[in-house]
Amino acid sequence: MSVVDNFSRREWHKRNGTDSLTPIRGLDERISAWREVSGNEIASYVGAIEDAEFLERVIVETKPEAVIHYGEQASAPFSMASREQAVETQYTNVIGTLNLLFFLRDHAPDCHLVKLGTMGEYGTPNIDIEEGYIEIEHKGRKDTLPFPKLPGSLYHLSKVHDSHNIHFACRIWGLRSTDLNQGVVYGIETDETAQDERLCTRFDYDEWFGTVLNRFCLQAVVGHPLTVYGKGGQTRGFLNIRDTLQCVELAVENPADAGEFRVFNQFTEQFSVSQLAELVQRSAAEVGFEIDIDHVENPRVELEEHYYNPVHTKLLDLGLKPSYLGDELVRSMLKTIERQRERVIDSAIDPRTQWKPASPAGAATS
Amino acid sequence: MSVVDNFSRREWHKRNGTDSLTPIRGLDERISAWREVSGNEIASYVGAIEDAEFLERVIVETKPEAVIHYGEQASAPFSMASREQAVETQYTNVIGTLNLLFFLRDHAPDCHLVKLGTMGEYGTPNIDIEEGYIEIEHKGRKDTLPFPKLPGSLYHLSKVHDSHNIHFACRIWGLRSTDLNQGVVYGIETDETAQDERLCTRFDYDEWFGTVLNRFCLQAVVGHPLTVYGKGGQTRGFLNIRDTLQCVELAVENPADAGEFRVFNQFTEQFSVSQLAELVQRSAAEVGFEIDIDHVENPRVELEEHYYNPVHTKLLDLGLKPSYLGDELVRSMLKTIERQRERVIDSAIDPRTQWKPASPAGAATS
Repeated sequence: MSVVDNFSRREWHKRNGTDSLTPIRGLDERISAWREVSGNEIASYVGAIEDAEFLERVIVETKPEAVIHYGEQASAPFSMASREQAVETQYTNVIGTLNLLFFLRDHAPDCHLVKLGTMGEYGTPNIDIEEGYIEIEHKGRKDTLPFPKLPGSLYHLSKVHDSHNIHFACRIWGLRSTDLNQGVVYGIETDETAQDERLCTRFDYDEWFGTVLNRFCLQAVVGHPLTVYGKGGQTRGFLNIRDTLQCVELAVENPADAGEFRVFNQFTEQFSVSQLAELVQRSAAEVGFEIDIDHVENPRVELEEHYYNPVHTKLLDLGLKPSYLGDELVRSMLKTIERQRERVIDSAIDPRTQWKPASPAGAATS
Repeated sequence: MSVVDNFSRREWHKRNGTDSLTPIRGLDERISAWREVSGNEIASYVGAIEDAEFLERVIVETKPEAVIHYGEQASAPFSMASREQAVETQYTNVIGTLNLLFFLRDHAPDCHLVKLGTMGEYGTPNIDIEEGYIEIEHKGRKDTLPFPKLPGSLYHLSKVHDSHNIHFACRIWGLRSTDLNQGVVYGIETDETAQDERLCTRFDYDEWFGTVLNRFCLQAVVGHPLTVYGKGGQTRGFLNIRDTLQCVELAVENPADAGEFRVFNQFTEQFSVSQLAELVQRSAAEVGFEIDIDHVENPRVELEEHYYNPVHTKLLDLGLKPSYLGDELVRSMLKTIERQRERVIDSAIDPRTQWKPASPAGAATS
């Protein structure tokens, strides 16, 4: 078992003056802690997947049976904040993954690539979303084709580009891959991280890397009104961080066939942003936090009321046992956050990144 | 009127030991010749669109009403020949275009971006191909969504990525763009280039940059059997180089609306590779070249027999008057090629780039 990391999330946080709520130990310390609690050894490679020479050495030395690919810039607002960050996102994600595909082809062609995708690739079409492919009947003929994509940010676009590149590598080179089109993750810990505080995983709450439920819980603890963007009718698929790991494990244990590009929609329940705000407000009140819900101007360009009904049966068919969201989990999150209250950086909470800058430089003068 | 060029096609030819059949003059000489024959001045900017500082200066200085974007690596085999060239292709095309979208947003938001796409984005699905979008009825609901893509090379993938990025820029930032999903171009000259030999355009026949009909005509002249890949049932849309310019002109004269990403399928007729080989064989015989048709092992991974029926009415509706392909045009191409016979580099003709390398380095030992 090996891990590849270039600490880019830590770097991006530094750049933005933000940090994980939970203190993240150094990689070596986390690997030692895991060895102590589990007896298992993890080898580490420190470098970037965009660095072809580095990545080729990793694949040649490890000859992996499976690669779990989480090595991408994962924030939509990060990708929308500037041209530089948009380019950084698409370069890191698309070119990094393209490098990986070539090295798997050349050095580990039977390897199963388990790739983190996103439900955000689909956007919010007015029809039911299928898992990766859709049978289309058109003018009397039929074919099953990739589900059309309407991604909502330049980050989500990078994942769409990846999906097309990986699909191609499977079709043409016979590679095997599972794309985990993940919903929005919430939660703080798993059974593994709970064994030793040195193993704790990150809990981001800033406008770039924080996800909505985690952000709402933190806002409740620090007394910040819950920041619902616009009407709050935006509906997405969600899952507990514990379930994400179950899903990855199920994918690895049941690999795709050679030449197959398999797509799983990885979430367990769907909620609107307003529903989540109401859940957090109610749960917080039960433990003594009185908090308002604030409908702030939406910094994103997105539909605030829309149809949403994505299929998500393939992981259930493989045996996924979901942990559903409820008041109890929210209350436990609030308590955990409270213990780290002094680490909260207040300036990181409000949204600043605009999808459509109001007066781009120069445009007013044209 | 300004032109932006970094001479990359010239560089790539040098790298491969190949060249255009027709001698291409330097940019300054071509601009002078155009000034002499037309009285029109073209300003030139020499640099790469991946160079953000350079490209921003171009957009700020020219404040374009329209950008005709041909600035991409355009060869499928080039993109499949190595990891380095795959990365170069997707980097140049995707990041270069992404830079352009940001600078249009910031400095020329009303500009009409006319982008060269390719029919190869669609691949060969088993249903009729529409122009960019398809109305899908699914489980009792309806939506009009981007037509699903099955591109056949890492170059074609870069164009799919571009299409998604540009569509997003139109949806989110309100830019306006027309994507010209062009078929395979044939022909040597236009009314403009015929006015002065210094204006002649390139005629590529090598395995990287040559297109099939041009390659067959050249093969006929030099006595090389016509290289049909596999069965030859591969069917594509084609158009005369004269019609490509008509199409660009029609797009520019009839701009897309603000926020609109419009897709035109830009070809006039469809042929299979075998039909083209037979046409060239017959026309060549009429002018004294006896030539064989050789079904060589297909270096590409593609369907050699398939359904193909793409819609292409939008440019006709705007007034496109096609020049159709026939024996007379082929005979005139053969004569023009014969005049440049001594410039042919014989080693450039046979296909070498394999879509699926037979024994990738290291794979045999795994």
